[in-house]
Amino acid sequence: MTEPAIKYRLIKKEKHTGARLGEIITPHGTFPTPMFMPVGTQASVKSLAPEELDEMGANIILSNTYHLWLRPGEKLVEEAGGLHQFMNWKKGILTDSGGFQVFSLAKMRDITEQGVHFKSHLSGEKLFLSPEKAIHIQNALGSDIMMSFDECPPFFESYDYIKKSVERTSRWAQRGLEAHLHADRQGLFGIVQGGGHKDLRELSARQLVGMDFPGYSIGGLSVGESKAEMNHVLDFTTPLLPENKPRYLMGVGSADALIDGVIRGVDMFDCVLPTRIARNGTCMTSSGRLVVKNAVYAHDFRPLDEKCDCYTCRNFTRAYIRHLIKADEIFGLRLASYHNLYFLLNLMKNVRQAIMDDNLLEFKESFFEEYGFNAKDARNF
Amino acid sequence: MTEPAIKYRLIKKEKHTGARLGEIITPHGTFPTPMFMPVGTQASVKSLAPEELDEMGANIILSNTYHLWLRPGEKLVEEAGGLHQFMNWKKGILTDSGGFQVFSLAKMRDITEQGVHFKSHLSGEKLFLSPEKAIHIQNALGSDIMMSFDECPPFFESYDYIKKSVERTSRWAQRGLEAHLHADRQGLFGIVQGGGHKDLRELSARQLVGMDFPGYSIGGLSVGESKAEMNHVLDFTTPLLPENKPRYLMGVGSADALIDGVIRGVDMFDCVLPTRIARNGTCMTSSGRLVVKNAVYAHDFRPLDEKCDCYTCRNFTRAYIRHLIKADEIFGLRLASYHNLYFLLNLMKNVRQAIMDDNLLEFKESFFEEYGFNAKDARNF
Repeated sequence: MTEPAIKYRLIKKEKHTGARLGEIITPHGTFPTPMFMPVGTQASVKSLAPEELDEMGANIILSNTYHLWLRPGEKLVEEAGGLHQFMNWKKGILTDSGGFQVFSLAKMRDITEQGVHFKSHLSGEKLFLSPEKAIHIQNALGSDIMMSFDECPPFFESYDYIKKSVERTSRWAQRGLEAHLHADRQGLFGIVQGGGHKDLRELSARQLVGMDFPGYSIGGLSVGESKAEMNHVLDFTTPLLPENKPRYLMGVGSADALIDGVIRGVDMFDCVLPTRIARNGTCMTSSGRLVVKNAVYAHDFRPLDEKCDCYTCRNFTRAYIRHLIKADEIFGLRLASYHNLYFLLNLMKNVRQAIMDDNLLEFKESFFEEYGFNAKDARNF
Repeated sequence: MTEPAIKYRLIKKEKHTGARLGEIITPHGTFPTPMFMPVGTQASVKSLAPEELDEMGANIILSNTYHLWLRPGEKLVEEAGGLHQFMNWKKGILTDSGGFQVFSLAKMRDITEQGVHFKSHLSGEKLFLSPEKAIHIQNALGSDIMMSFDECPPFFESYDYIKKSVERTSRWAQRGLEAHLHADRQGLFGIVQGGGHKDLRELSARQLVGMDFPGYSIGGLSVGESKAEMNHVLDFTTPLLPENKPRYLMGVGSADALIDGVIRGVDMFDCVLPTRIARNGTCMTSSGRLVVKNAVYAHDFRPLDEKCDCYTCRNFTRAYIRHLIKADEIFGLRLASYHNLYFLLNLMKNVRQAIMDDNLLEFKESFFEEYGFNAKDARNF
């Protein structure tokens, strides 16, 4: 039996919550968890250089299988020596399965047991993605952590539909496992679905855990449900997952949701939020969101966040960044993107320390208070 | 009498041409000449950080008075502590006078002896720029080198018009000199105009040199005339300028034109060309222009320029940069911009060495040959 490509080592459980401190060992380095992963959709974290990601403390980034399959094509990436070499990133890479994009971006999709027929959002070309194809694309990309091909139905889809979908996702996971070409150097995760239903999450987890994946993702959240609903689902889902494997909550990146996810035992997160909102000048700061484009910052010569020591905050003012973004200068969104990613990576560093110190709930309380975040709010940043 | 803010030190003349090696001493450092200046129109060299400009060997950058006057406004920049502090750039800054943009970008202009009435290209607002106003804006920006307010008529405008324009530009230069508030810390250059007419260039140079500026710009070139015509004008214009002052050829940035300008005694150049062409994937290389977006580079895993040791060429391939630019990823134009600016800065470094070695003509010949540049070509890159 081959050694799995991805291993999880549990270092410590927090005393008062489900939070855990650990590390994930990958072919491209070991990183501490809980961890946030910046998103580099098209083999680039928008506007940033690999050295900058490294410098801000990113240890693993996410790239999108669907996008890279369409452009430049996984064969080209393979010919380049894999995604790490193509984009000159020496640390970890996680790829998704393409499933989420097929369901959210592509047009005219037709779901069959075999896979999904759909039209490219770029060219309109007819395409087909199956569990096997999704795995083989990821094999060609050479990511450290791969995702099984799954269906991610809307949270409020009918119980019957979600049940059928969960069962098909399990069959697809099994097919993906069998199609996987490089289990020795790429770890394939199963994705637990089941919407808001406890029994369906149990069904999904039981079936996937039975296949013994090296890690488990929690899918189907952050798709329209409330913050409270998401936390509720996590409350009964993470305990279904084995303690000796990493747990990844897909597509979640608001500061409060990260902390609440960690409290419920999640180890990994990703989201486009920090870079997406940066592009219109919205910045995450220790005292809440700051829309630097607003007129009130025109003459404000303080850094984005006075408590932040990132490159942006050490060197540039709100007034300058506002000017750049108002004037459509790329360097403005580059500075805001750097800051937002740093903010979340640094938050996770503080969260790990709080787990170590067994005071995560106190940390959450003071963070939320300073952030101006009301626990009853929706989780929209 | 105050010490001038800008001084030129002639180090050596090349034996076989008019080229000269020197250095310019500014309040923000001393830099060797001949030198190319990257353009940061709106207080940012598009997509690049100050540290990157420093690392690639840029010692002085150009910023545009017209753009900064309109947005964010020179008073805001002054309040920030000046342009250096606003954009966190510790080395030299040169600002133009706004004249060129008023004549090229603005609408419905009306030129009077007092100044120019026109409409903002951004808001349509009615504005007025005079020699005094152009100087006071630059005083507020706090650049190291400032430009007199001039008119830059089309190269093929009538002799009579250009003659009247030259005389008015001289009167404007005198008014600017008198309006200048900080001669001790900002050096104001006069701009020699006169189109393609030797006697008008002589007239312009004589009048301006009589006002004893700390440096002289050559304007009205690179505005539609041929390469041969530009060189011809330089042939009779640079000898009209004092040897102990720097000479700046405005708006010229193609590799061949830089070399030909140096041969005729020019010390400083600026142009948006390297960053502008980078944005559509056109790269300057030692073997000529390379349009990296072209399909032929899809599987090309070599650097942009195999002889280049810049950050881009040390770390990324043509295939990757092509992918980024095709996919509208900002990091692609960032990499191409870095490379193009490095290419010109490095070219000037080699040119300075060739002046030192008295073999500039041999250098030109071998550069042009490798570059695939036919001396009879138009100077369009």
